[in-house]
Amino acid sequence: MALTQARTMPGVMELLPLDQIAFADMLDTIRRNYERFGFLPIETPAIELSDILLTKSGGETERQVYFVQSTGALDAVAKSEDEKRPELALRFDLTVPLARYVAEHEHDLSFPFRRYQVQRVYRGERAQRGRFREFYQADIDVIGKDALSIRYDAEIPAVIYSVFRDLAIGPFTIWLNNRKIMRGFFEGLGVVDGEQQAQILREVDKLDKRGIAYVQDVLVGEGFNLSNHVVSEILGFVQLRSTSHMDALDLLHTIEKGNPSHRGIANFVQGIAELREVLELIKAFGVPETHYAINLSIARGLDYYTGTVYETMLNEHPQIGSICSGGRYENLASNYTKSKLPGVGISIGATRLFWQLREAKLIGTAQSTVKVLVTNMDEMRLQDYLELATQLRAAGIPTEVVLEGGKLAKQFKYADRAGIRFVLVLGSDEIAKGVVTVKDMRKEDQFEVSRAELVKTLRVELEQAQVMG
Amino acid sequence: MALTQARTMPGVMELLPLDQIAFADMLDTIRRNYERFGFLPIETPAIELSDILLTKSGGETERQVYFVQSTGALDAVAKSEDEKRPELALRFDLTVPLARYVAEHEHDLSFPFRRYQVQRVYRGERAQRGRFREFYQADIDVIGKDALSIRYDAEIPAVIYSVFRDLAIGPFTIWLNNRKIMRGFFEGLGVVDGEQQAQILREVDKLDKRGIAYVQDVLVGEGFNLSNHVVSEILGFVQLRSTSHMDALDLLHTIEKGNPSHRGIANFVQGIAELREVLELIKAFGVPETHYAINLSIARGLDYYTGTVYETMLNEHPQIGSICSGGRYENLASNYTKSKLPGVGISIGATRLFWQLREAKLIGTAQSTVKVLVTNMDEMRLQDYLELATQLRAAGIPTEVVLEGGKLAKQFKYADRAGIRFVLVLGSDEIAKGVVTVKDMRKEDQFEVSRAELVKTLRVELEQAQVMG
Repeated sequence: MALTQARTMPGVMELLPLDQIAFADMLDTIRRNYERFGFLPIETPAIELSDILLTKSGGETERQVYFVQSTGALDAVAKSEDEKRPELALRFDLTVPLARYVAEHEHDLSFPFRRYQVQRVYRGERAQRGRFREFYQADIDVIGKDALSIRYDAEIPAVIYSVFRDLAIGPFTIWLNNRKIMRGFFEGLGVVDGEQQAQILREVDKLDKRGIAYVQDVLVGEGFNLSNHVVSEILGFVQLRSTSHMDALDLLHTIEKGNPSHRGIANFVQGIAELREVLELIKAFGVPETHYAINLSIARGLDYYTGTVYETMLNEHPQIGSICSGGRYENLASNYTKSKLPGVGISIGATRLFWQLREAKLIGTAQSTVKVLVTNMDEMRLQDYLELATQLRAAGIPTEVVLEGGKLAKQFKYADRAGIRFVLVLGSDEIAKGVVTVKDMRKEDQFEVSRAELVKTLRVELEQAQVMG
Repeated sequence: MALTQARTMPGVMELLPLDQIAFADMLDTIRRNYERFGFLPIETPAIELSDILLTKSGGETERQVYFVQSTGALDAVAKSEDEKRPELALRFDLTVPLARYVAEHEHDLSFPFRRYQVQRVYRGERAQRGRFREFYQADIDVIGKDALSIRYDAEIPAVIYSVFRDLAIGPFTIWLNNRKIMRGFFEGLGVVDGEQQAQILREVDKLDKRGIAYVQDVLVGEGFNLSNHVVSEILGFVQLRSTSHMDALDLLHTIEKGNPSHRGIANFVQGIAELREVLELIKAFGVPETHYAINLSIARGLDYYTGTVYETMLNEHPQIGSICSGGRYENLASNYTKSKLPGVGISIGATRLFWQLREAKLIGTAQSTVKVLVTNMDEMRLQDYLELATQLRAAGIPTEVVLEGGKLAKQFKYADRAGIRFVLVLGSDEIAKGVVTVKDMRKEDQFEVSRAELVKTLRVELEQAQVMG
């Protein structure tokens, strides 16, 4: 029979078991921290109805959506030319499904509703290194009914801090801004059209890559027609950063007082007041001031977010870009319900993050989830090996038994290759003495331990290994 | 703006948070037991290439497959009539992706390769109560290179036993059979054609629903044309069950000796020898004999499985059907590699199982993952509440703070509704005394505890709660 070459579509991250364990550890750390802050898990189906997913504008998103059709539906479409858009599609983020979920189950949920969700999403991206078509997002959101206090905006950085402290991938900074400040600042310069503001910010986003001269030229050029004065005001403003908690408060004071023409602009004044309140509370939430700062260039798309916005950067790896982003929005589910549901949330693109951390050698391969291999020296003693394994498993220690004997050296090699830490040998010597020989593959050491002490000893060693990472 | 009604497609199980927690607990129990027996996690993409998923026969499977298309591809299809089958599709099980994975990564894996996989699969089923189009499967398989000892067939029931013991959903029985026995038995009766054997077994499967007279009539009737003698031999055989370990061995002895005409049939003889070896080892693997038995009606499809087959039934809920099934197969990945990869595995249809257990009231709603709610009595003390929460979170206790104050009674009601066990009150009395009032929502009790003892006390209470379930 002709063989089909075993392969996946481009744009997926498929891992070998030890890497899968490292990735699962990362997701577990994220989940544990989300739970620690009182977020509740939900899961939604990957397949949603197209009219639910695509109520909004369409555009870029719609072009990237994957539609889903059963064979029957496929035949039907072939017959009718009209029905071009299939009834089903794969979710491209976790926000639209959250909106649908909250609207659908509104009367069964308690508000403020704090949910976390760690699932895969799907995007028909062009195939490109480091771009994924199927990838995990790990999101949290707090959704209020009618209103949601600004205080929740200050809790989010505490969660971000907790997650990335535990992931231990190096120093990081949570960048803060407030969309209202940006909007008000533009209004003060006479740029009142939201779409034009968005276009300017897209150019500003190129500062790092293209340099200041390039962006300046574009903004004074034909498409924008801004004056030199306005452009230099904008470029000066978006480059502002704070360096400490006090400096952040000072910075807010400075931009408030330093732009007298903006004092009458509601957005500007309110944005500064909000960001000030968020800053003050972040400290009370226990986030060290080395880990957050104001960055007036953070915009995160103009239409969706309306207040506080966040990005998170690894200080030593700026090329990775933001590893956790989000913000405050006015109304989550206006497409599905008349209820006003303001919220604030963040998203971690976990697949991309893991891939980038591996590329940057910030995470390695994990040890195996299998902690003990019981070797098989003598086929006649299989019953003894099985009893030993049953004893270890009952104590919660993941244990594999070599069911088919063979050379002991080969069994050691298997354990080594499979990343199994402890290898047990139970030969006639050991049985006569009532002990087990434990070979520690990591320390390249071995010792004898009595059968009675075995579980306790291994537990201690495994706990130490976990603490020491 | 016109609202779109918030809804999912039929055939998905979407849960409210407390049910989601119960379901996640179930999946965790399954995973933990799979790991305990030395199985390694893998995940594969939900989207596979169609030519990978559909190399085999097609038929029922192909009719149920969901194809996937990006908008661009959709337009292209509309133009060309030929290209009817899209390039991408959603997996309908975890076995074909495993075959592709093992073939693709063959040189990076250690054999025997023991993998577990807990992911969603997709089937375009007709919408029907209790039928799912998107659902979780939780699979394990051991894959050998060239050969795999029959001993692995005996380990699988030990895993099944461990999983369902821990799930604590009532007494259950692992039914065992061996496809070779069935095949050999049919051959001895002159029914040598595999397809005819399969058709007979499909009728035999209706015994419970339709009764013996119906099945008898069909088998002697036109389509089959079997003699009365052959039919009564078959119906007598498939109704054989064992009642204990010794009885199972006796049963094997009886069918071996009681069918002298079958003695020369290789399948029959080998099947009995295999099942005997599996039975003997199951005991050594520590499975209590109350939890396994021979059932000569278990067939599980004739083409895929070739040796041992398993089904698992809840003794008190036979209407639920098999909750965990699988078996031994000759060659996992013959479509993708020339290597011979025999294996043995099982699958738990976790979504369906959870749904059925809820219907049968065998599982209820979980307590919240959030263990503590810090109430907000006095807005001026927010800083104190946040510090208290930070202290609890640092100790790993999931804690929510009421960030917007309001009536205390309302905050208690929120905790009650949200399933949060402990509610903390920190008023001026408590602060003066250096204590916290802890309200235990479950015991409807409250007590004061010093700030210094708070974490320790809550930990003890929470551990007790976990032990007591």
